[in-house]
Amino acid sequence: MKIYEYRGFPNPARIRIALAEKNLTDKAEFIAVDVPKGEHRTPEFLAKNPSGTVPALELECGTVISECTAITEYIDHLDGRPTLTGATPKERGIIHMMQRRAEAGLLDAGTNYFHHATPGLGPNIETYQNKEWGEKQRERVLAGMAYFNTALAHQPYLAGPDFSMADITAITGINFAEFVGIKIPDDHTHLKAWRERVAQRPSLAAQ
Amino acid sequence: MKIYEYRGFPNPARIRIALAEKNLTDKAEFIAVDVPKGEHRTPEFLAKNPSGTVPALELECGTVISECTAITEYIDHLDGRPTLTGATPKERGIIHMMQRRAEAGLLDAGTNYFHHATPGLGPNIETYQNKEWGEKQRERVLAGMAYFNTALAHQPYLAGPDFSMADITAITGINFAEFVGIKIPDDHTHLKAWRERVAQRPSLAAQ
Repeated sequence: MKIYEYRGFPNPARIRIALAEKNLTDKAEFIAVDVPKGEHRTPEFLAKNPSGTVPALELECGTVISECTAITEYIDHLDGRPTLTGATPKERGIIHMMQRRAEAGLLDAGTNYFHHATPGLGPNIETYQNKEWGEKQRERVLAGMAYFNTALAHQPYLAGPDFSMADITAITGINFAEFVGIKIPDDHTHLKAWRERVAQRPSLAAQ
Repeated sequence: MKIYEYRGFPNPARIRIALAEKNLTDKAEFIAVDVPKGEHRTPEFLAKNPSGTVPALELECGTVISECTAITEYIDHLDGRPTLTGATPKERGIIHMMQRRAEAGLLDAGTNYFHHATPGLGPNIETYQNKEWGEKQRERVLAGMAYFNTALAHQPYLAGPDFSMADITAITGINFAEFVGIKIPDDHTHLKAWRERVAQRPSLAAQ
């Protein structure tokens, strides 16, 4: 399988981590798409992924799958033993719920802050910015951090006892938030401990 | 299982349709949350669902699952034969991709237009509005309609030959867009034919 990505960006990192967790990194051929130069908006790339986003997964048959949750579902089910997206209906429900909360409240909010309230990727890429709305997204990241700090008070990972897709989304969201200057408040001790715990996983250390 | 909802709103409709597709409607007890009166922001409801959204699913054990994709994953796997979220890794990947595109490009864009660029649910509920950003979301709905019209040129449903979770998200998005005055352009014949096809399903006719 081919993975179209831009190394170091948060959404491609989600797939790198998922592949490492499943021991599938060496089955993937990584193809760089130069997003800051606008390569994700060329007709050639849009023909593969009309959303114009990285990462995108291209299968041997030519089918292209974009959106990180979708790519993670594919990867996690390849061996018939899902470990990142849950095995029971209840596990699946909780993991998808926490994944979506992490995506909306940390990662998407943080990237929207970056693209709207800061120079982002520069004027050639940021063709529409709304600074006021972008600043609101910063508040949303801080609210997300407060929520996840509470959620982690009595369990080691976001969906319960085991590491999951939800933790992958959240750790890339937390790391990106720090990159754009939104740090975990000092009194969020549960969130900080979780971050240390996740950072020690081989899949994270390899990034 | 209990479903907290507000009848007629688009996200609760997604779960009503999913339950009907799985013949599980009579297993659910529906509990009304008066969103226009702010009941979704009471301490009692936020203790169940910190996101403050409907629908939310409460299991017998007390666990509460919010976010429509998560609730649909739970429902679809209850009988061990998923029909809405895919059976193979490739099916799962494509369905989750198209679901997310329908959510971001139709349903969320349309509800954001409603909440930001129109009076929405009134001044007591719409405590932050950004009209310019809301108007951009209207453009996003129209772009989403154009994309899905193209995607449906050679297949009956969004993820291929079979009805799926992606179609549920998209039909509620299309219906809500019409409610707020964003109609399918006349030349989007594939999207219109798909809408007619989906509307004839018993799960939709029962709404």
